[in-house]
Amino acid sequence: MKLTTKHALAVLSAVSLVALTATSAVAKDNRTIGVSIPAATHGWTGGVVYHAEQAAQEIEAAFPHINVVVKTSPSATAQVSALEDLSVGQDLDALVILPFTSEELTGPVERVKESGTFITVVDRGLTDPAIQDLYVAGDNIAVGANTAQWLAEKLDNEGQIVVLRGIPTVIDDERIQGFTDVMEDTNIEILDIQYANWNQDQAFTLMQDYLAKYPQIDAVWANDDDMLLGVLEAIKQSGRTEIQYALGGNGMKDVIELVMANDAMTPISTPYPPSMIKTAIYMTAAQFAGQAPMRGNFKLDAPLITPENADQFYFPDSPF
Amino acid sequence: MKLTTKHALAVLSAVSLVALTATSAVAKDNRTIGVSIPAATHGWTGGVVYHAEQAAQEIEAAFPHINVVVKTSPSATAQVSALEDLSVGQDLDALVILPFTSEELTGPVERVKESGTFITVVDRGLTDPAIQDLYVAGDNIAVGANTAQWLAEKLDNEGQIVVLRGIPTVIDDERIQGFTDVMEDTNIEILDIQYANWNQDQAFTLMQDYLAKYPQIDAVWANDDDMLLGVLEAIKQSGRTEIQYALGGNGMKDVIELVMANDAMTPISTPYPPSMIKTAIYMTAAQFAGQAPMRGNFKLDAPLITPENADQFYFPDSPF
Repeated sequence: MKLTTKHALAVLSAVSLVALTATSAVAKDNRTIGVSIPAATHGWTGGVVYHAEQAAQEIEAAFPHINVVVKTSPSATAQVSALEDLSVGQDLDALVILPFTSEELTGPVERVKESGTFITVVDRGLTDPAIQDLYVAGDNIAVGANTAQWLAEKLDNEGQIVVLRGIPTVIDDERIQGFTDVMEDTNIEILDIQYANWNQDQAFTLMQDYLAKYPQIDAVWANDDDMLLGVLEAIKQSGRTEIQYALGGNGMKDVIELVMANDAMTPISTPYPPSMIKTAIYMTAAQFAGQAPMRGNFKLDAPLITPENADQFYFPDSPF
Repeated sequence: MKLTTKHALAVLSAVSLVALTATSAVAKDNRTIGVSIPAATHGWTGGVVYHAEQAAQEIEAAFPHINVVVKTSPSATAQVSALEDLSVGQDLDALVILPFTSEELTGPVERVKESGTFITVVDRGLTDPAIQDLYVAGDNIAVGANTAQWLAEKLDNEGQIVVLRGIPTVIDDERIQGFTDVMEDTNIEILDIQYANWNQDQAFTLMQDYLAKYPQIDAVWANDDDMLLGVLEAIKQSGRTEIQYALGGNGMKDVIELVMANDAMTPISTPYPPSMIKTAIYMTAAQFAGQAPMRGNFKLDAPLITPENADQFYFPDSPF
């Protein structure tokens, strides 16, 4: 009888031990990552929303103790309110934010940080970089420079080209600077360079003007894939045949499809991908999943997207 | 009868649909990440081995289609062979490497890349940076500068200090440069600055020399936590009481424990953490888990480790 009790106790404690071990193996503190992004007002932000939602699902499936809450906002003012909603309703361990504007969001993000929240800023910086723990951004100079290097080589450093600018911003300035710096070392002449506000219709009209003005155009750089679609339509309607290349930049789905199809006029693109929001969410989660150091500055490259590697940059279900 | 058959077919196709959906949800291509790192020849590399193995376990648990193979090598020559073993035996989708030396490993890593393997380089760069897809490194200038800023403020920009250098390398040069650049804007005098090769015993002996030579030392910067332990022992044995602060850098476990305990002489550290190998493995895996863009350059910050945040930098089971 004594022996039996002892035995029963031994079994019981073995069971408890197993139960305890199992519990401690999964008993990580629950963590919540808030994600605040612009609503899908145009193609690129549509991609941001898609990739943020995908990342949330994937992270929650991979790391059950990590909860990812995505909030989209149609304006800077709405994003300020969204930050309040996110941080008042729950204990926010991290905030991943793609700010609408630097000026209006800096103060509100600083207040979120004051309660100990890890801050990841994506794409557009805040006016005070000391607030962010992690910064993830693309390289707009490389978008321009890598495209220019490829084009200069293809044109054998000779010819006449036209360029379209986006909206007057640092992003546009950097892309143009990266492109023109490379072109200055060639005999390629930039015939014209005008703004079309990253807008497909305006790019169509501007390209029609360029075509009317210049009888010989060897290539077009549209600076952005949205504008490239307008440019391609204008070229198609004009029936002009001397234009060898029309290139954009961003890694838009429609353009990646052209690259995958080995299109003669658009055989490359350079990414400034909306999926960088995914990069930021995965990096932020890795800190909570494995205590991996993630404070710092991640500058994404803008490698050439070619027919060989295009599948790595292609998301068939994404709107962008 | 006809209706029943139709009904049965409908049920069957519904079942098939569910089966197909379930399959496609998990039917991701299997991916293998090879990790090549130095063997645990000293404290810091001991930490690298620990964190690489932890990351492998965590990633495989979170993403069942990702396989992580860790190989440690006791020398540069051995690491070259390890790369051959890793890439010959299996289809390597990515290689995460902390190279022993830049010169000897550059060629072998380039050959691995030629078969389409994604290359992540950690800490020490290759001689040709174009080979890497992702580069993850600490910020040695910030290690020196952030420590110097904290110390200058505590000393009210006045006093006499001594500094220990490591092994003559770019890493040591950058830490020292970051520190001395900040000190130049203060009235703090650096009495002496000598090499102790990141070695605890040599740091002990050098600190004894400093103590014999200089009757008034307000603070010591050991540049590295291994050396700091030697310095602390020399101070302890000397019985000298005027030294207010003795600081290192790296985020070694023993020193984080001092910080957590609010130690008067060593209340801070700055990380150059061996866990950056984890950062690199998580980032590389995120590319295969969610196609998150991960080509680029990630420079880790060296934020001050203080009693308030020390738990984030502390791994109780790590050897370092």
